[in-house]
Amino acid sequence: MNAGQVAALSGGVGGAKLALGLSRVLPADELLLIANTGDDFEHLGVTICPDIDTLIYTLAGLANLELGWGRQDETWSFMETLGAIGGETWFRLGDRDLALHVERTRRLALGESLSAITDHVRARLGVGPRLLPMSDDRVRTRLRTDDGWIDFQDYFVRQQCRPMVRDLAFVGVETARAHPTFLAALAAPDLRAVVICPSNPLISVEPILALKDVRAALAACAAPVIAVSPIIGGRAVKGPTAKMFTELGTEPSARAVAERYADIIDGYVLDFEDAADARAIDARVVLARTLMISLEDREDLARVVLRLADEIRA
Amino acid sequence: MNAGQVAALSGGVGGAKLALGLSRVLPADELLLIANTGDDFEHLGVTICPDIDTLIYTLAGLANLELGWGRQDETWSFMETLGAIGGETWFRLGDRDLALHVERTRRLALGESLSAITDHVRARLGVGPRLLPMSDDRVRTRLRTDDGWIDFQDYFVRQQCRPMVRDLAFVGVETARAHPTFLAALAAPDLRAVVICPSNPLISVEPILALKDVRAALAACAAPVIAVSPIIGGRAVKGPTAKMFTELGTEPSARAVAERYADIIDGYVLDFEDAADARAIDARVVLARTLMISLEDREDLARVVLRLADEIRA
Repeated sequence: MNAGQVAALSGGVGGAKLALGLSRVLPADELLLIANTGDDFEHLGVTICPDIDTLIYTLAGLANLELGWGRQDETWSFMETLGAIGGETWFRLGDRDLALHVERTRRLALGESLSAITDHVRARLGVGPRLLPMSDDRVRTRLRTDDGWIDFQDYFVRQQCRPMVRDLAFVGVETARAHPTFLAALAAPDLRAVVICPSNPLISVEPILALKDVRAALAACAAPVIAVSPIIGGRAVKGPTAKMFTELGTEPSARAVAERYADIIDGYVLDFEDAADARAIDARVVLARTLMISLEDREDLARVVLRLADEIRA
Repeated sequence: MNAGQVAALSGGVGGAKLALGLSRVLPADELLLIANTGDDFEHLGVTICPDIDTLIYTLAGLANLELGWGRQDETWSFMETLGAIGGETWFRLGDRDLALHVERTRRLALGESLSAITDHVRARLGVGPRLLPMSDDRVRTRLRTDDGWIDFQDYFVRQQCRPMVRDLAFVGVETARAHPTFLAALAAPDLRAVVICPSNPLISVEPILALKDVRAALAACAAPVIAVSPIIGGRAVKGPTAKMFTELGTEPSARAVAERYADIIDGYVLDFEDAADARAIDARVVLARTLMISLEDREDLARVVLRLADEIRA
């Protein structure tokens, strides 16, 4: 029996951990990954898609676990030489990582869609589940700081999240079309679940939800929508999620994350540590160990999410 | 006493050997190198200038002497990964070499001139003499083969010079302007010499000579113009020079090369082996050892060329 597809919405590192867990407990054809592309940017003449790449590298077993980004077995000759001739080195691109960006950029210039290119690379690197960019149209996350609007990667990498974030914008999101395969999956009668991975709700998940038709499709979706909190005990496991929540006027908590998804989720998974938040959440709630250290942690959390979805559906 | 500048016209490997010799026997400010850009091409989204890069790497002591092209201490992670994801790998780009192409392409896109970028890179890599592209405007060498017109690098690298060459074209040469510093150097009253390095006359030197005003400036030039034969005993040291001469209907010889330069040269340096050709050449001729194996060979040949120029000038 085919159990119906699970669609998982994800940003980079945190989300990719659960995506990996899902990919290990589901057959490849029962998982569809939807990647945020708001963090994508053009740099050194190439188009870089950090969340897509993190998902591919993670699911291919190629992720650099020491660095927490990029590829394993990486070399740095390109960057070293670029520095020697006075080029821009604030965004570190490994020699192997760069090949993916160069090939993607070449194909984009030929008119191929980002989704077709992503699918090609995924298959070449041995990733089983289908991985879709949220849209083939360009969306770019910008942040308003005290120094004005800046690009996401300028904030995230060059300035290492130091500026205070006053506002967010997803440039292009009004006209970008959610990928049709993504919308079709949400409308499929046999869809098993939608999973919102534990990614930054403000910059990794929100660009996906902000696409025309997506929030409505999720609200109308026959399958249970399950979110997993990226906040544990008021802190983010990694990245600026908690800092951003605070700067935008909300105390960071598992509950605050749930409130952002209130109109679309049927179930919510939060950490044992946040049991006190559980009562205030208007969805079916499961407490679990959400910190994913080992591969088993990833698989276990994936099973918790799927069990909750199946219980809600039943 | 400043002896006046020497302007040397060069293609890649063979020409760069003599350019290196000249750079070691002349003060940096007395040598101006003019590089062919007809071999330049766009590949994988970057602009590659093989002759400029070979000259820079050679004069910087960074040339890969084992391969005969590219950089020493090179790594190949980029190319290896590009192959793994199905990209084009027929033109091998090392990780360090790639950095130069990416940085050049980035700066070109910002509107910087190729000559300004070349000068920046030259200085960063410690090359003393000024190095100019023959033009800041685009010229691209194309070859007519039995399969039609193809790009030079397609012929040279991808097809390894296998096709028969029926005709040559330098696309853009009619409108391209020779670099003004190059033309100014040719018109300078204290110019010491012009050296045509032992590069392929058909595809490395001819694009430079074909630029508007260059042939006339060389013919009118007050300084002696000295060419060095790239043909020794009817064969080219490296590359398709002899094969191309034959295919285009001329027997390859030191004399055949001199005939191509008949209207502009005052002196000609050819190999001892080609003594029989010497009488038929309408220029002051010097026999020398022109095969440059060692660094001393390069310096010796440079001294021979300069001595001939100074004798003609006296």
